[in-house]
Amino acid sequence: MSRLLMEHGVRVGRMAPGATNSLTDVDGVMVGHTTLIDGSDVRTGVTTIIPHPGNVFYEKVKAAAVTINGFGKTVGLPQINELGTIETPILLTNTLSVGKVSDALVSWALEHYQLPECPITSLNPVIAECNDSYLNDIQGRHVEKEHVFHALDSVSEKPVEEGVVGAGVGVSAFEFKSGIGSASRIVRLGREDYTLGVLSLPNFGRREELVIKGVPIGLVLRDCERGTGEHEQGSIVIVIATDIPLSHRQLIRIAKRASFGIARTGGICHNTSGEFVISFTTANKVSHDPKRIFLEERRLNDAHSVIDAVFQATIEAVEESILSALFSAETMEGIDGHRRGALPIPEVLSLLKASRHSYS
Amino acid sequence: MSRLLMEHGVRVGRMAPGATNSLTDVDGVMVGHTTLIDGSDVRTGVTTIIPHPGNVFYEKVKAAAVTINGFGKTVGLPQINELGTIETPILLTNTLSVGKVSDALVSWALEHYQLPECPITSLNPVIAECNDSYLNDIQGRHVEKEHVFHALDSVSEKPVEEGVVGAGVGVSAFEFKSGIGSASRIVRLGREDYTLGVLSLPNFGRREELVIKGVPIGLVLRDCERGTGEHEQGSIVIVIATDIPLSHRQLIRIAKRASFGIARTGGICHNTSGEFVISFTTANKVSHDPKRIFLEERRLNDAHSVIDAVFQATIEAVEESILSALFSAETMEGIDGHRRGALPIPEVLSLLKASRHSYS
Amino acid sequence: MSRLLMEHGVRVGRMAPGATNSLTDVDGVMVGHTTLIDGSDVRTGVTTIIPHPGNVFYEKVKAAAVTINGFGKTVGLPQINELGTIETPILLTNTLSVGKVSDALVSWALEHYQLPECPITSLNPVIAECNDSYLNDIQGRHVEKEHVFHALDSVSEKPVEEGVVGAGVGVSAFEFKSGIGSASRIVRLGREDYTLGVLSLPNFGRREELVIKGVPIGLVLRDCERGTGEHEQGSIVIVIATDIPLSHRQLIRIAKRASFGIARTGGICHNTSGEFVISFTTANKVSHDPKRIFLEERRLNDAHSVIDAVFQATIEAVEESILSALFSAETMEGIDGHRRGALPIPEVLSLLKASRHSYS
Amino acid sequence: MSRLLMEHGVRVGRMAPGATNSLTDVDGVMVGHTTLIDGSDVRTGVTTIIPHPGNVFYEKVKAAAVTINGFGKTVGLPQINELGTIETPILLTNTLSVGKVSDALVSWALEHYQLPECPITSLNPVIAECNDSYLNDIQGRHVEKEHVFHALDSVSEKPVEEGVVGAGVGVSAFEFKSGIGSASRIVRLGREDYTLGVLSLPNFGRREELVIKGVPIGLVLRDCERGTGEHEQGSIVIVIATDIPLSHRQLIRIAKRASFGIARTGGICHNTSGEFVISFTTANKVSHDPKRIFLEERRLNDAHSVIDAVFQATIEAVEESILSALFSAETMEGIDGHRRGALPIPEVLSLLKASRHSYS
Repeated sequence: MSRLLMEHGVRVGRMAPGATNSLTDVDGVMVGHTTLIDGSDVRTGVTTIIPHPGNVFYEKVKAAAVTINGFGKTVGLPQINELGTIETPILLTNTLSVGKVSDALVSWALEHYQLPECPITSLNPVIAECNDSYLNDIQGRHVEKEHVFHALDSVSEKPVEEGVVGAGVGVSAFEFKSGIGSASRIVRLGREDYTLGVLSLPNFGRREELVIKGVPIGLVLRDCERGTGEHEQGSIVIVIATDIPLSHRQLIRIAKRASFGIARTGGICHNTSGEFVISFTTANKVSHDPKRIFLEERRLNDAHSVIDAVFQATIEAVEESILSALFSAETMEGIDGHRRGALPIPEVLSLLKASRHSYS
Repeated sequence: MSRLLMEHGVRVGRMAPGATNSLTDVDGVMVGHTTLIDGSDVRTGVTTIIPHPGNVFYEKVKAAAVTINGFGKTVGLPQINELGTIETPILLTNTLSVGKVSDALVSWALEHYQLPECPITSLNPVIAECNDSYLNDIQGRHVEKEHVFHALDSVSEKPVEEGVVGAGVGVSAFEFKSGIGSASRIVRLGREDYTLGVLSLPNFGRREELVIKGVPIGLVLRDCERGTGEHEQGSIVIVIATDIPLSHRQLIRIAKRASFGIARTGGICHNTSGEFVISFTTANKVSHDPKRIFLEERRLNDAHSVIDAVFQATIEAVEESILSALFSAETMEGIDGHRRGALPIPEVLSLLKASRHSYS
Repeated sequence: MSRLLMEHGVRVGRMAPGATNSLTDVDGVMVGHTTLIDGSDVRTGVTTIIPHPGNVFYEKVKAAAVTINGFGKTVGLPQINELGTIETPILLTNTLSVGKVSDALVSWALEHYQLPECPITSLNPVIAECNDSYLNDIQGRHVEKEHVFHALDSVSEKPVEEGVVGAGVGVSAFEFKSGIGSASRIVRLGREDYTLGVLSLPNFGRREELVIKGVPIGLVLRDCERGTGEHEQGSIVIVIATDIPLSHRQLIRIAKRASFGIARTGGICHNTSGEFVISFTTANKVSHDPKRIFLEERRLNDAHSVIDAVFQATIEAVEESILSALFSAETMEGIDGHRRGALPIPEVLSLLKASRHSYS
Repeated sequence: MSRLLMEHGVRVGRMAPGATNSLTDVDGVMVGHTTLIDGSDVRTGVTTIIPHPGNVFYEKVKAAAVTINGFGKTVGLPQINELGTIETPILLTNTLSVGKVSDALVSWALEHYQLPECPITSLNPVIAECNDSYLNDIQGRHVEKEHVFHALDSVSEKPVEEGVVGAGVGVSAFEFKSGIGSASRIVRLGREDYTLGVLSLPNFGRREELVIKGVPIGLVLRDCERGTGEHEQGSIVIVIATDIPLSHRQLIRIAKRASFGIARTGGICHNTSGEFVISFTTANKVSHDPKRIFLEERRLNDAHSVIDAVFQATIEAVEESILSALFSAETMEGIDGHRRGALPIPEVLSLLKASRHSYS
């Protein structure tokens, strides 16, 4: 959860967060990590998101995927958008480990989701990645099958662990140490409260671009804790989960708003920054069962602009999840003596305070 | 209806047609035409499809649009795919009359759909077009507001009038005279029969490409009734209506299969052939009413491959509608002395018969 | 040009603007307006952008279109993306006048671009729109052919006139009076300076969302000059022109960055806010001439991340053009006694000053 | 090459094939296979296409990808369409081996393409797949790294080996044994001959759908050599290579025509039939070298409809490659005693002869 932001009194946006301000506030959604830190150069990991505790292959979740900038190596997107569903956990890892992680996910899914009477011969693993080569020996491809299994087997509905964990171990954003970030928002629709959560893996941005709550923090801190530095490959992966009943088309609309959240942190979607968004809802699960010819579904009426609240929630949670990744990550050294400094929180807080507008 | 094909014993595909083998077999769907033939060079018109007899703006139909080849001047597609609905009649006309027809449709919709308490300030007219300049004085833009109103006011649920009517007056396909064509198929899903209908406006293809039921008719008749001829701008507009409960995503999937129906007639989607498909379902109408926050909808389960029957129906009905346009159209002379000969039906039938395979 | 912003010392972004900080800094690009203000309720107009002074139909410009939110009534987008070109001026007007304006553009293009030996029978007019019904009698559809012609005939390469002119007459943004806005940036590529310009028509956003240079101006001024107000239909149209040699694919990439510029002003892309981006380059014009089988083109190497500078320029110019529309527009009264107050510039400047960070 | 079709006098389409009527007619393009047939149930393999003999990572080929039906597990498509390039070989294998094959391709590319001075930390492997589980023990995932390396190391510019080889070992089409198929066409543009080649992996279609040269062969042979048979998962992968200078946008246009070739064989793009098309040109290679800011490129003028010949070539080569896969494949037995009969060529030839139309 965006604990640190909240503890420091940094409130992002205007909507109320969920109970723990993290992805797992969406009922049933579970997150796990395998963190690989070894010697001077292994700085990587795997993060897994399991959409619900049941058999995801047999009870698929409605889902959509949006590519903001396709310079990235995600796996599984075409089928998500053709069928409007996700049928496996969603895994995040480093760029060059996608193949191995994908293969391990297939193994795990066959073990866990296959029913004796119905062999699975087709399965759409969903993987996204960031390039952590600034700190990690990415060519070593240190993520093995057992790491993937561990990340899958250790998931929990507890508040998302943030910062330098899982796929977030080796990443940087705005040339500060980054990691896993998460946030959530409560969306009131009619008389009911729903939850929308975001988990992000921000690995993008140049220092001088960073903006926090409108304050050009990156410009001010342009020389602070600067890594030794060649320009690196970026990327951000954003996973949005909700329990609001939405159609595939609406899940696409939601996912398209993620750009606006990234932009609020100063991101400009660089050429090499692969930016992908995956959204799903735990409402209206789609049974694999071939016996039902029709499905009955409930969905938000978007002729009604009440969907604006869902857009707002998405943008705020995306923005906060990115900042939360920065606030939660500690300084790290890695391959080739590279060092990535953490966001200097006291300075940031004092800059935020200094810029607090006379009217507030 | 594909009367002539059926009368001549030419059966297309393997599924059963609806009662009149035309678009209006889908309950509530209505079609109207204004046919403009005047002097030696006015050869154009308007065709209107009204998705249901009620207030379409207040009870929108779920819809999708697919662009096979975007060399064309359709109006309204982006909103169809964003909101997944159509809120006006669908109009077909000639390329250079799109603006005027669009304006007239706005007038008509304001007159017919506006409720006193709720002024309409935003409305998404849907127009598609073909280039009929081979026979028509297209620059004269002879379609006026009253022609549009007439086409809208004269709609009926009767079998679609085919051939040289409405927007079909000036079009050609495979260098034969073409026009409006239509066909339908019955799709059994579970214990119920549903209907899928197609209306098409084929204006594409070179002579030697025409294939009927697998027989290369165009090649054989390559010198028959050849127009005086420069190569012309093509296009085909395809409108698919059904009463099967489908989601927006599924309506896109259906519409994408139209290519396969075009290909069966020998079409190759030429560079200048704008090919657009609009699909809608009369099931699950979407109320404009902003008071309901959630909608309850029923939709086909496409995890279940029963949707294959809907794909098959689409392909067959698209193929037959194109052939039906050719069978229904009579020879016409137009601007600059251009003449477009009708398909020589007796020769075609005898070729079909001659090629009847020994096994059949 | 963003005169007022600059005069007031409000600098947006970090890159240098072009000579007049407006779209017409791109050599050859011309802009014209017809402003319709009449009685108490005619508050609308037309804005035209002519990509170059030659025959645009015969020397098309390479172009792309991106739909951020497709709740809007643009005309011409499918063909732009199929052929990668624009062959007419680009026109902006109100939602319900699109048909009439489209028809008028066809008339004008036939008059101006048709060569005697080569009649034009197919033409792809490009129109975008905003809903100005809060101030304008939109159902009156007051834009007539002569207004369109005037806007086309009065174009010039002079700095873009901003604020309450042309299609900007009746629009609002963040519940302040808005209008036409423009800005430009110089992009140094290798040893040469190129220009990228933006013209926007911002008609979106709730008051409390407005952010200027990171300062939540809208929240502070939430009760200032509030219109009498039902929630209105939004939209923003963004036209990006440049002389950088870019391919169609790259023009799409550029256009996709516009979201990031909108987000910097606080926009969240509401449900009813149709958001469309059209981008074109005056480099590598595409001849209509059918005699040349191959074209030789020069394009930016985007394997090289130098394209990041173009992304940055786009985002800054989009952001500034929106703010410039707000700074340039004066308070207006319109239909039904509606009144839309201008941005209170002195208050805004003093808020910006107050929030100037200690470090700057 | 489509040897067997030609030997049997079965000519598909009207354009001339290249020297060997296969993908490798495109200069520089190389194909390799690893065929895995072992015991009673290993029936799978890998097929590799290397776009040119040089360093593909440092001299990328311009490319595009089109999803006809996204029910499939391809890897690499988003980046192909964002950057318009392919930077690795293209690999085909079975559905559940995609991860392992992807990982092996990364290993191979690092070994072969990495320059000492420039470590590769980001690489976009391109993999497509078919579900061969009817004959193959797909869950065994028998494709190992060494098989991938062998397929990559054994590529040649010789005529493509077709039928039961590589990724084609376990596939079926129209419930006949299928495999790898290939075909090519010569396209004359101006005074020069260019080549367009296709390699396909057809694994789709119900028996009664098969059409050869317009003759409903599948209907006639509906009971011939029928497998023991539950309905299986389908798919077709189509790779198009050419030396025609085309832009990314044009490569998309070409790839979209593949549907028309599939349709000519009777395909209807079933629900579970993942249908993906990858197209590339060996003209205008894109250097990874970051020093050149601009690239000079030559491309086909598609304002000129000469691109129609490229569309026609694509459709014919896709159609022929599918038929060639059927003609080249021999009967095979596999897992669970499943048996898939080869197309009975003599019967097919006699049916084709019988249906030879009186006029031909």
